[in-house]
Amino acid sequence: MTTRIGVVGAGQLGRMLHQAAIGPGLTLRFLAASADDCATAVHRDHDLGSALDGAALAAFAETVDVVTFEHEVVDLDALDALASKGVTLRPGPRALRAVADKLDMRAAVADAGLPIPPWRRADSVDEVVEAVAEWPDAVLKLSRGGYDGRGVFMVSGVDEARAVAGEVLAAGTPLLVEPRLAFDAEAAVIVARRPDGETVVYDPVVTTQVDGQCRQVLAPSGLGADLDAQARAMGVRVAQALDVAGLVAVELFVVDGELSVNELAVRPHNTGHHSIDACVTSQFENHLRAVADLPLGDPSLCSPAAMVNVIGDGDGDPSDHLGAAMAVDPGARIHLYGKAPRHDRKLGHVTVCDDDVERAAERAWRVVAALRGQIPAFASA
Amino acid sequence: MTTRIGVVGAGQLGRMLHQAAIGPGLTLRFLAASADDCATAVHRDHDLGSALDGAALAAFAETVDVVTFEHEVVDLDALDALASKGVTLRPGPRALRAVADKLDMRAAVADAGLPIPPWRRADSVDEVVEAVAEWPDAVLKLSRGGYDGRGVFMVSGVDEARAVAGEVLAAGTPLLVEPRLAFDAEAAVIVARRPDGETVVYDPVVTTQVDGQCRQVLAPSGLGADLDAQARAMGVRVAQALDVAGLVAVELFVVDGELSVNELAVRPHNTGHHSIDACVTSQFENHLRAVADLPLGDPSLCSPAAMVNVIGDGDGDPSDHLGAAMAVDPGARIHLYGKAPRHDRKLGHVTVCDDDVERAAERAWRVVAALRGQIPAFASA
Repeated sequence: MTTRIGVVGAGQLGRMLHQAAIGPGLTLRFLAASADDCATAVHRDHDLGSALDGAALAAFAETVDVVTFEHEVVDLDALDALASKGVTLRPGPRALRAVADKLDMRAAVADAGLPIPPWRRADSVDEVVEAVAEWPDAVLKLSRGGYDGRGVFMVSGVDEARAVAGEVLAAGTPLLVEPRLAFDAEAAVIVARRPDGETVVYDPVVTTQVDGQCRQVLAPSGLGADLDAQARAMGVRVAQALDVAGLVAVELFVVDGELSVNELAVRPHNTGHHSIDACVTSQFENHLRAVADLPLGDPSLCSPAAMVNVIGDGDGDPSDHLGAAMAVDPGARIHLYGKAPRHDRKLGHVTVCDDDVERAAERAWRVVAALRGQIPAFASA
Repeated sequence: MTTRIGVVGAGQLGRMLHQAAIGPGLTLRFLAASADDCATAVHRDHDLGSALDGAALAAFAETVDVVTFEHEVVDLDALDALASKGVTLRPGPRALRAVADKLDMRAAVADAGLPIPPWRRADSVDEVVEAVAEWPDAVLKLSRGGYDGRGVFMVSGVDEARAVAGEVLAAGTPLLVEPRLAFDAEAAVIVARRPDGETVVYDPVVTTQVDGQCRQVLAPSGLGADLDAQARAMGVRVAQALDVAGLVAVELFVVDGELSVNELAVRPHNTGHHSIDACVTSQFENHLRAVADLPLGDPSLCSPAAMVNVIGDGDGDPSDHLGAAMAVDPGARIHLYGKAPRHDRKLGHVTVCDDDVERAAERAWRVVAALRGQIPAFASA
């Protein structure tokens, strides 16, 4: 009578889903590209196959009671077909479509009545140039297929825009063009929602992004009760509008004290990794509870916390420096994903709980430096 | 360069070791009796074999860098042979021998200069009768092979002692005979120790045992700073005396305000399960750090906590009532081991963190009642 939960994808999010499933004894299987993916390296039950292969998705769905996703690069037409055959997909194709394409995402957020930054769609170099004439410092984003800063291009002025757009548009994917915003802060909020609409909301966080890639998350946000309440309400509104079953992560800009929605994801999200160590119920456990239609767990923050990502930058494998990192701070919670190190790849994260969130951040960055080999081991056999 | 840690045994302690290994990316393999054991059900890397089969132990040891244990029912002579060939065993055979036999354990604790309750060895019915003539309410314990209350017999008076002893001694295992103590409380302390002697000590806890089986653990102990300090010192003394690399759990009696050592284990222990949810670093992670000779993590308690075991009593599978249990208390941390339900079998545990430890216990017992089907689901699809 245990619900078998199928997870499409087996990267670090799948790995942390598996870790969260062990406690309550939930049953997971993965659709993995390789038996050595992050999640399948630490779990035995998977099918090998691509999320872009409709036949593989269909065969995988046969083996489980509900299908969920740890990434959005999925054959959406195949999912529509599965849904029409009665396969339980959580979140459903509508939510997945809304996040798979940044243009659709803007439309969905606007439809939900939530504020979004100024934007335009551009299918041609001329349309890009027209937008950049209005916004000289602009961001060009591939509407599909980008992640972690990939597919995002900063341009200044029409000449640069023309050159970059020519190259980027060659692949045939339309662009989202936005002005580069002078934001006060970036924030995020995560909502877990059951199929019947029950929701719980995590405390909003502030994030620091470099080149579109999350580097640091602080919880609580420090934005004040008013903005936190607005962020929570916006998270719930998005979850309802997309009829999400599972998690929705809403990334927000704070510009002149006003919130607007920058990005959405409908899966566990980097801005919620601190919840493993700092919240009563982690985002990963609540994602599983939501997709299995089980009562949601308390998302409360137990302690202020800072999360810092461990990102590959050509300085080797952080697991080679694990002892040094543990020696630097016995209270840090080190998470390594078992991925081969590559430049700009997320290899792990470090969370530190501390009554003082600034000190938590300092401690976490020091542990990350140690994982990079910048602080030699001073106490090891 | 990652240390491959071999774990002999794949029960719930192995399962929770695996869960703890995922965070820092430590590499485990199990020697498991079955691919469907608790740990191997959620991890892919194991050998099948018995811990009582010297050849299986030797073959398993070849595949890893260090061998550790989640139970004590191991071929100790085979381990001596492996140690003499240079295989790294943590803890080593000396510590394992001291805990595998309750008579050896008493001797080891006495040698370490620590108080133990009165006891006698009995190899014959006459020796049992002689002891019970002195202590009319006595406990007979099989010196080897007992666990979780199995192999423990309460007797009152010489006639009962004679009858029980005749039956029990037939198997040829000597008995430990003790007076039944009117203790104020039972307590426990867990120490993690690296091969070089570095130790960290968990806050002592008080435990409630029924028929020799742990039912409830409260942390902190509430015994007061003086007894807590004594308990900590005794834990460290035992770890040193047995030269433990890994964990040692010391179970203590409190009689007339004095501590004495009741039992030892050199592995993760039921009296430390709350550490997963209530401590900065769990006993499972610190066991792995210690046996991999990595710097130990902070064992501090983040919140008062209560842990209550889920024990089979013929009322079905607790996973059938998971939704009801989650609905009863969204803040409870439910751990189910995926074991087939059987009478008196530990099937899981529930930990609740709460500023008030008594309320934590009440909440945890209520969730356990729900897992037993005693509180119907009132909010589920």
